[in-house]
Amino acid sequence: MAFSERVARLKSSLIREILAAAQRPEVMSFAGGLPAEPMLPKVEWADMPTSMGQYGMSEGEPALREVIAAEARALGVPCDASQVLIVSGSQQTLDLASKLFIDPGTEVLVEAPTYLAALQAFQLFGADCIAVPQESDGPMLDALRQRLEAHKPAFAYLIPTFQNPSAVRYSEAKRDAVAALLDEFGVTLIEDEPYRDLVFDAGSATPIVSRLKKASWIYTGTVSKTLLPGLRVGYLIATPDLYPYLLRLKQSADLHTNRVGQWQALQWLGSQQHRDHLAQLRDFYRQRRDAMQACLEEHFADLADWQVPQGGLFFWLTLKQPLDTRTLLAPALAQNVAFMPGEPFFIDPEQNPGHLRLNFSHVAPERLGEGLKRLAQVIREAQASLAA
Amino acid sequence: MAFSERVARLKSSLIREILAAAQRPEVMSFAGGLPAEPMLPKVEWADMPTSMGQYGMSEGEPALREVIAAEARALGVPCDASQVLIVSGSQQTLDLASKLFIDPGTEVLVEAPTYLAALQAFQLFGADCIAVPQESDGPMLDALRQRLEAHKPAFAYLIPTFQNPSAVRYSEAKRDAVAALLDEFGVTLIEDEPYRDLVFDAGSATPIVSRLKKASWIYTGTVSKTLLPGLRVGYLIATPDLYPYLLRLKQSADLHTNRVGQWQALQWLGSQQHRDHLAQLRDFYRQRRDAMQACLEEHFADLADWQVPQGGLFFWLTLKQPLDTRTLLAPALAQNVAFMPGEPFFIDPEQNPGHLRLNFSHVAPERLGEGLKRLAQVIREAQASLAA
Repeated sequence: MAFSERVARLKSSLIREILAAAQRPEVMSFAGGLPAEPMLPKVEWADMPTSMGQYGMSEGEPALREVIAAEARALGVPCDASQVLIVSGSQQTLDLASKLFIDPGTEVLVEAPTYLAALQAFQLFGADCIAVPQESDGPMLDALRQRLEAHKPAFAYLIPTFQNPSAVRYSEAKRDAVAALLDEFGVTLIEDEPYRDLVFDAGSATPIVSRLKKASWIYTGTVSKTLLPGLRVGYLIATPDLYPYLLRLKQSADLHTNRVGQWQALQWLGSQQHRDHLAQLRDFYRQRRDAMQACLEEHFADLADWQVPQGGLFFWLTLKQPLDTRTLLAPALAQNVAFMPGEPFFIDPEQNPGHLRLNFSHVAPERLGEGLKRLAQVIREAQASLAA
Repeated sequence: MAFSERVARLKSSLIREILAAAQRPEVMSFAGGLPAEPMLPKVEWADMPTSMGQYGMSEGEPALREVIAAEARALGVPCDASQVLIVSGSQQTLDLASKLFIDPGTEVLVEAPTYLAALQAFQLFGADCIAVPQESDGPMLDALRQRLEAHKPAFAYLIPTFQNPSAVRYSEAKRDAVAALLDEFGVTLIEDEPYRDLVFDAGSATPIVSRLKKASWIYTGTVSKTLLPGLRVGYLIATPDLYPYLLRLKQSADLHTNRVGQWQALQWLGSQQHRDHLAQLRDFYRQRRDAMQACLEEHFADLADWQVPQGGLFFWLTLKQPLDTRTLLAPALAQNVAFMPGEPFFIDPEQNPGHLRLNFSHVAPERLGEGLKRLAQVIREAQASLAA
């Protein structure tokens, strides 16, 4: 069978395998990024018109695009509804952007670590990814300038607000500095913001795209983290030089996003009901984060370092004695514990051992301590056997 | 702005422009392939569990995959549920298949004419399309053998049952002959069947994939034509050598198909309610086809030749005096009539002037005669001005 060249770059998905293993009800899974089941809102469908069953526009529902543009403007993003494209979950933005920009060998700038599924999408199309190390307040600026001087990336893909996996939120100063550098070098920004609304403190951070003066940009969001991922409704907002191409690529990919999900999203976005739901979500996840922090201090204080995440869904642990955390998966699953190894979030996994991504939204509090205790024990045994 | 090489192959979509123009309520549109609004079934959502809002499996909902596999087996397609992948409308199958098979220059075999959006998807990825002329009972077999001897296509893309645009249904003999040729040359078949259930006579036709003995295949269908296109739920069934790759490509494209649409599809497929709905659809569309046929005989008898379609949604007209039908669009729209020119359905549009695709499901019967009368007049005037 003669497949395309890109199929050789189609990796077996570690996430798929872990999530499949984590399906067993007895498994305590820190692996995924799933919303907590109790926080899935009950939604009403009775008022949806039958016409939502007809074919729709590739751009998305006009009323939904208006609401999304208005919410983005309230965040400081200069845009109108004509720049909004509704997509089948924000994963599709990565597919469309890859099609727009990436040929085999095209350089793309990412954070280290970065979102695994973005890395896989870019690499599937043949991207040569260049990474900028992440610090606790955003990327290393010297390294970013050096990369921009030495390379000509088609775009920079950044997740400045509660990054998956590192939970980093860029400081105001770094947002300004990154915007200035992208303007200086004329590099398009793709700013991915699924977690912005899952914030646990009073801090805010205006999107980087709103600070750009010249560079083109794509800003991308989703209702998956704050409403229902099963709707598969996300959106991108793009500068007018990019939008017409993204629209045609969307049409070629799947004609348009499902309209029932778009209709449901429209009932929520911008409404008091949604603001109330977000407030409940933040309280719920803050409590789960605090519970996780307490358990981590009990079981991991001597094993790892971490920052307390101010938003998002993840803790990012750095082992004091690094080892390849992928080797921990099998023994952890044998103890009915699932987690996400850190190595696949880097373009050079072998050079970045010793991180674990732990989701805090999914495991029920009463099982949390037991799960983390087992995971810590698996790590201790692995380190002991390496030392032996 | 440096875009990928493929963007240069991203065509401005004539269909998009026509459908946008046809949005005006005063336009009588024969252009699209939209189900008739009165035949969109009223659907119930009250029983959908909240858990359908959670992330789902990339393969699709297990129960839906089971039903689709059972229906396919009833058609003669040898498969089980593990071979079924739920996609975001069958357009996505074209995107996934393109990613799996097509590099720039990869040869792909298609019918002439073929489905325009398939052609665009394949060409976006750089396919070199090779076409086999269509006759009233299927492809010219001599030409098919000659193409298979001279070329090594990665796959053959065929629409054997009420093809869009030509409405051709392959005969039993040609189905057997095509299967034998694909087996002989070891060419993968992609069999696209959105219109199978919209049949107006007693004729049946077992899918070609069920006649293959060796070749790999992808069989693709959708609920868009028989339930609700706005759900964006389609499916593919693939041989086990192809399935794992298509699954990973699906995951990279959009994680999974929306679950609310999948749940709704599951309420219908295989049910008595769906069989009743299909029977109503067939009656309704048969009447619309008959009304169109009567009006065509009145206004087009001297202008064009056509076959009465036994299924699907389209008449395919061949002008007795060919001209580039794309030049008719502007004057037709000025008369508030929209149609689909035939040229873009061919890989070599300039060599194939003089066809029109006319949808018969959308325009209300009371406006049908007026619309076709105006279109005939536009053609007569264009032919007169060419002759002058």
